[in-house]
Amino acid sequence: MKKVAIGIDIGGTFTKFGIIDEQGNVLAESSMATYKHKSPDSFIKVLFAELAILRQPLEGQIKLIGIGIGAPNANAHKGTIEHAPNLNWKGIVPFTTLLSNYFPSIPIALTNDANAAALGEMIFGAAKGKTDFMVVTLGTGLGSGIVSNGKLLIGHDGFAGELGHVIVLANGRQCNCGRKGCLETYASAPGIRRTLMELMADTTYESPLREISFIKLSAKDITAQASIGDKLALAAFEKTGEILGAALANAVAFTSPEVIYLLGGVARSGDLLLIPTRKAFEENLLNLYKGKAQIQLSDFQDRNAAILGASSLVWTS
Amino acid sequence: MKKVAIGIDIGGTFTKFGIIDEQGNVLAESSMATYKHKSPDSFIKVLFAELAILRQPLEGQIKLIGIGIGAPNANAHKGTIEHAPNLNWKGIVPFTTLLSNYFPSIPIALTNDANAAALGEMIFGAAKGKTDFMVVTLGTGLGSGIVSNGKLLIGHDGFAGELGHVIVLANGRQCNCGRKGCLETYASAPGIRRTLMELMADTTYESPLREISFIKLSAKDITAQASIGDKLALAAFEKTGEILGAALANAVAFTSPEVIYLLGGVARSGDLLLIPTRKAFEENLLNLYKGKAQIQLSDFQDRNAAILGASSLVWTS
Repeated sequence: MKKVAIGIDIGGTFTKFGIIDEQGNVLAESSMATYKHKSPDSFIKVLFAELAILRQPLEGQIKLIGIGIGAPNANAHKGTIEHAPNLNWKGIVPFTTLLSNYFPSIPIALTNDANAAALGEMIFGAAKGKTDFMVVTLGTGLGSGIVSNGKLLIGHDGFAGELGHVIVLANGRQCNCGRKGCLETYASAPGIRRTLMELMADTTYESPLREISFIKLSAKDITAQASIGDKLALAAFEKTGEILGAALANAVAFTSPEVIYLLGGVARSGDLLLIPTRKAFEENLLNLYKGKAQIQLSDFQDRNAAILGASSLVWTS
Repeated sequence: MKKVAIGIDIGGTFTKFGIIDEQGNVLAESSMATYKHKSPDSFIKVLFAELAILRQPLEGQIKLIGIGIGAPNANAHKGTIEHAPNLNWKGIVPFTTLLSNYFPSIPIALTNDANAAALGEMIFGAAKGKTDFMVVTLGTGLGSGIVSNGKLLIGHDGFAGELGHVIVLANGRQCNCGRKGCLETYASAPGIRRTLMELMADTTYESPLREISFIKLSAKDITAQASIGDKLALAAFEKTGEILGAALANAVAFTSPEVIYLLGGVARSGDLLLIPTRKAFEENLLNLYKGKAQIQLSDFQDRNAAILGASSLVWTS
C-alpha cells in the first residue's frame, strides 16, 4: 500500500485536486468549478463525490494519510477561509471542519493557496535549497507566499503575504476587497482584461479583440493575440508588466528574496509578461538589491505547484 | 568587574554611543556628529577618542565584552556599510574591520540601525514576548526592522527591511538613493520639511515658519509650531501621516505584524504624527487585518533603542 495525500487547490474559478505520493508524483488529478457553488456545503458535497471517483481506480493500492488544502484567504491557524473576495462564500467558512464530516478519521490541513505553492516550490520545485524567495500566483486573483530564512512567513494572525492587496495606485481600480488600486486589479487574469478595455479606449490599435465583449474576453484570448503580434494585446502585457515589476521591486525591500517565482494562468504567457515585468523591476529596484534579486517563471507551469504544495502540508505536518 | 557592551548607533546626522550592561542599563552615553566626517577613517578616529573619554570614569569597574553597531545600509553578514545614501561615505565601507584596528581583541558586530532598534524592542522594550512586529525609525532617513515568528528578517543578502525605499508615488520626490518617490522622502525629518515647503506654496496659512529658510528649518521647529496650533505645521503632520499610514497599511500585507512601533526624532512629535498616521492606516488597511494590526509609539522615545539594540548584538552573539 502506497502512502498518499490528497492535495486540493481552491481557486476563484476552478478547484484542482490530486492524489500525490511522498515523492511528489501525481497519481491522479481532476478539477471542478468553484464559482458555481453559492455555498461551501454544496461545494464540499460535489468535491467529496469527485474525490471518490478519483480514488476508485487506485483502491487497494493506496493508503490516504491526510488532506492538504490551499485556498484564498485561508487562516492556517484555524482551518477557516475568511472573507475571501474572490469566492462566493462570504464571512468565515470553517472549511476543515466541514470537510472532516466526510473524512472523519483523516487529518486535514489548510493554508493560503499561494503559501501552498511556495511550499511546493521549496519541497518539489525550483526553490529546492533556497532560503529566501517569494512565489506570486497570477490567476483569478494575485496571491503570494513568502519564505524567509527557510521558513514560510505566516504572520501574527496567519495571513501574511497578501501582496495582491497592496495598494499600488491611490484611488485606482475598484477591487473586490472593497478598496481601490490593489495590485491584483492590474496584475491577474481579470486585471489584464481590465487593462485591455482601458487600452481600447486610449488607443486606436485595430484588433479582433475589439469584437469580444468584456464578459466573454479571457486572459487566454489576450495571450493568443499578443503571441501573433496584436499591438493592443501586446500593450496590455506591457502595462501589466510595468505595474507588476514596480510592485515586485517594492516587495523586495521587505524580505530581500533571492528569486521571485511567477506562477499561475497569467504567468503561462511566458515572455509576453516576463520581459516587461523584468524591465520595470530593474528600473524600480533599489541599487542595493541590483543583481541580487531576480524574477523567474516557476518550473511548475505545467505541473500543479498548488496541489503539490497543498499535499506537502500533509508530509510536513 | 561588570560585563558591558558598547552600543553604537550611526545616524546620518549624529552618532550615539553608550556603555550598557546585560540588563539594559546605560552606564554612560554620549554622541558626536556624523555628517562632519567626509571619510570613515576620520570618523572612527574621533569615535575611538570619544569612547575612551566615556570609558575613563568606569575603568576598573567594567569589562568590555563586545561592540554592537547599528548603521544605515549595514550588511550584517559582512560587517560592511554599503552605498548608504544618507552618509557621506560612498561605496562599500568595511566598518567592523576598520574599527577592529582600534579594538583588536574585542568582537564587533554590525547590523542595520533599524534592525538593531527592533532587537532592542524585543529584548528590552515594548515588544518583549511579541513574535510578529515591525519597528519604523523616523529620523534623517526612514528605517525598518521586521520580526516575524520571533526572528529578525535578514534576507538573502543581509538587507531585508528597507521600507524607507519603497516607492509610494511614481515620479515623486527625488530621493538620495537616485530614484523618485521613496517613502523616506515624505516620512522622515527632511521629508516633513519638504512637505512644509510644498504647503507654503499650496496654502496661504500664515506662520512664523515662513520666515525660516529651508536650510535652517528643522523638524523640531515644525513640531514646536504644530503643538501651539500653527495651521501650516499641522497640515505638514497631516500630510506626513496620510502618506506614512497608507504605506504602513501596505506593509502589513507582507508579514502581518501585530504592532508597528514608531521610533526616532520625528516620532517624538507624538500625537501630532500618530493621529493622522493611524487614521490613514485604518482607512487603507485590508479588511482581513482590521482590528488585528496597530501602530504604537515605541516606549524607547526617551531611552535609546538603537544603542540598546546595537548592544544586544553583543549579548545574543
